[in-house]
Amino acid sequence: MNKVKSYAALSQEKPLEPHDIKRRNCNSDDVLIKIEYCGVCHSDIHMARNEWNDTSIFPMVPGHEIIGVVESIGSSVSNFKIGDSVGVGVYVDSCGKCKNCNNSMDHYCEEGIVLTYNSYEYGTTQITYGGYSKKIVVKDSHVIKIPKGMSKDKAAPLLCAGITTYSPLKYVNVKPGDKVGITGFGGLGHMGVKFASAMGAEVTVFSTSESKKEDAMSMGAHNFVNIKNEEQLNKAKNSCNYILDTVSANRDMAEVFSLLKTDGRIMIVGLPMEPLAISSFSLIDKRKGIIGSAIGSISETQEMINYCNENDIYPEIEMIEMAQINEAFERTINKDVRFRFVIDMSSL
Amino acid sequence: MNKVKSYAALSQEKPLEPHDIKRRNCNSDDVLIKIEYCGVCHSDIHMARNEWNDTSIFPMVPGHEIIGVVESIGSSVSNFKIGDSVGVGVYVDSCGKCKNCNNSMDHYCEEGIVLTYNSYEYGTTQITYGGYSKKIVVKDSHVIKIPKGMSKDKAAPLLCAGITTYSPLKYVNVKPGDKVGITGFGGLGHMGVKFASAMGAEVTVFSTSESKKEDAMSMGAHNFVNIKNEEQLNKAKNSCNYILDTVSANRDMAEVFSLLKTDGRIMIVGLPMEPLAISSFSLIDKRKGIIGSAIGSISETQEMINYCNENDIYPEIEMIEMAQINEAFERTINKDVRFRFVIDMSSL
Repeated sequence: MNKVKSYAALSQEKPLEPHDIKRRNCNSDDVLIKIEYCGVCHSDIHMARNEWNDTSIFPMVPGHEIIGVVESIGSSVSNFKIGDSVGVGVYVDSCGKCKNCNNSMDHYCEEGIVLTYNSYEYGTTQITYGGYSKKIVVKDSHVIKIPKGMSKDKAAPLLCAGITTYSPLKYVNVKPGDKVGITGFGGLGHMGVKFASAMGAEVTVFSTSESKKEDAMSMGAHNFVNIKNEEQLNKAKNSCNYILDTVSANRDMAEVFSLLKTDGRIMIVGLPMEPLAISSFSLIDKRKGIIGSAIGSISETQEMINYCNENDIYPEIEMIEMAQINEAFERTINKDVRFRFVIDMSSL
Repeated sequence: MNKVKSYAALSQEKPLEPHDIKRRNCNSDDVLIKIEYCGVCHSDIHMARNEWNDTSIFPMVPGHEIIGVVESIGSSVSNFKIGDSVGVGVYVDSCGKCKNCNNSMDHYCEEGIVLTYNSYEYGTTQITYGGYSKKIVVKDSHVIKIPKGMSKDKAAPLLCAGITTYSPLKYVNVKPGDKVGITGFGGLGHMGVKFASAMGAEVTVFSTSESKKEDAMSMGAHNFVNIKNEEQLNKAKNSCNYILDTVSANRDMAEVFSLLKTDGRIMIVGLPMEPLAISSFSLIDKRKGIIGSAIGSISETQEMINYCNENDIYPEIEMIEMAQINEAFERTINKDVRFRFVIDMSSL
């Protein structure tokens, strides 16, 4: 075991602080990664504060948008070599045996995935620790290749915010001619705009903040609807084939459904704490539906990274130092971020 | 206009009682139908008691599961002749011009369909009156042919309960190898069992009433799960590709979602008054979804009738006389019906 400098929440009430953790020595199929950048995901905050159904394990080292460089490899690792640029996303293991794992849907592993942090390694009491850390050891099967020439700092949030929005849009096969609405225009939503637009759809951002219009349009949106403006909202009814719903809060879902055309689908990726109130009348009128989507498989994450590289798609980021993390949490909660914080891990 | 004997609710507080209405004279494209049988749908009760968002119009003649015989036809009607057996379902007009009407989805007409009762004819203040009546006049485009040899009394509930369950099962293309759950085992649910089983699926009925097991199995179900039995319920988790949800009441929807496999879908046809509480966690875990479905188009209703005729599929019915309707309403509310009441309209 090797001692590694990290930033951890020692309990749900405490701010994050410097904390040493232990990482395992490289097994034969492991990759030891020196972490260069780590994105700050809103779920890091929920987890660190134990806001999701009391599932948090402390001490907790958050971070699942990890970019780094291979520092050493296990004896049987053939697909990575020292010096390679790599990424690690939301999970670091899956059973590899169930139907979903065998169908490139390992993110829906029937045994349950091992999260990059706040999980136990299979069959042990060893807590997993995330990317707010100098180094991480990950099985080669769960490491993503970062192509040469990619902007590594900006690539970090692709590992969660990117795949979370790419996967549902690919799942419903968004294509030219489709009209896609994006609700919520933050870390996830702005990536949704970039992907849906790159896939050829006509993209409409639905937001409560008029101030976001310019950003939305500059990132590829074709329309912007201020949902507080009744006239704009009424004009947008019955207009979308799909809505990528990135809002993590309860709302009048009937309003969201009203924006869909016949056979339209809300693809929801947000995780409001309270159940959504969904009227059966909203669903039955014009055969509408709502489908959830969680991140994406390892192979799809690699596909997404390659797609971003080829199409020059990156999130908008604000770089911070590790010591600014607690301030960054507050600013994320207050939506005061354009559009994702990334930690420069050399600052730790 | 012609005076026609009917049974009507004169207000939301009143029981149904004999009441004369006026029907229009046949237009050139109209069919005058002598009504022989009319099914009693639970929505007749909701409508007559103004329980759906204050949308009821009085006097109201309920009934949208109508079977009868053609008594006369308008001058341009060529697809029906006097003496033909015919049916009328939930709606009697649609705009015929919108995208949905032009794509055999007239039941999702963008102008709004004209319901068989409790609507206004397009552009008029003429209330539509349903099948608790001796006669009805309907545009030929909205009349269903009942093949020779069909059991006309038992065919009546197919016009609503039948198409409401057939359409979503066809929409998701239920086929051999699929596992289909049916929640709720009443007028709709028992038709769902018969259709899903005829389409080749392995069918599981989920019910709170152990007493329904024998009926369910005899109608084609392969499994019966008493959802009050925790052991049975746990065994059934992660087992269904589709669940046809016919329950018109709020419940723990997380439990229903837990029965679905990865990429599973709840097809909801029930209309609980209050919004359903659906956790985003239920949706995002294994990409599950819920989609609504309302009746079916005129052409699909005809397809369903032909399918029932070819495959000898009928609802289970209890025949009543018109004067028993208020008692039948109470028994329907108390779930004391096997499985659909049909009114013998010769009793009026």
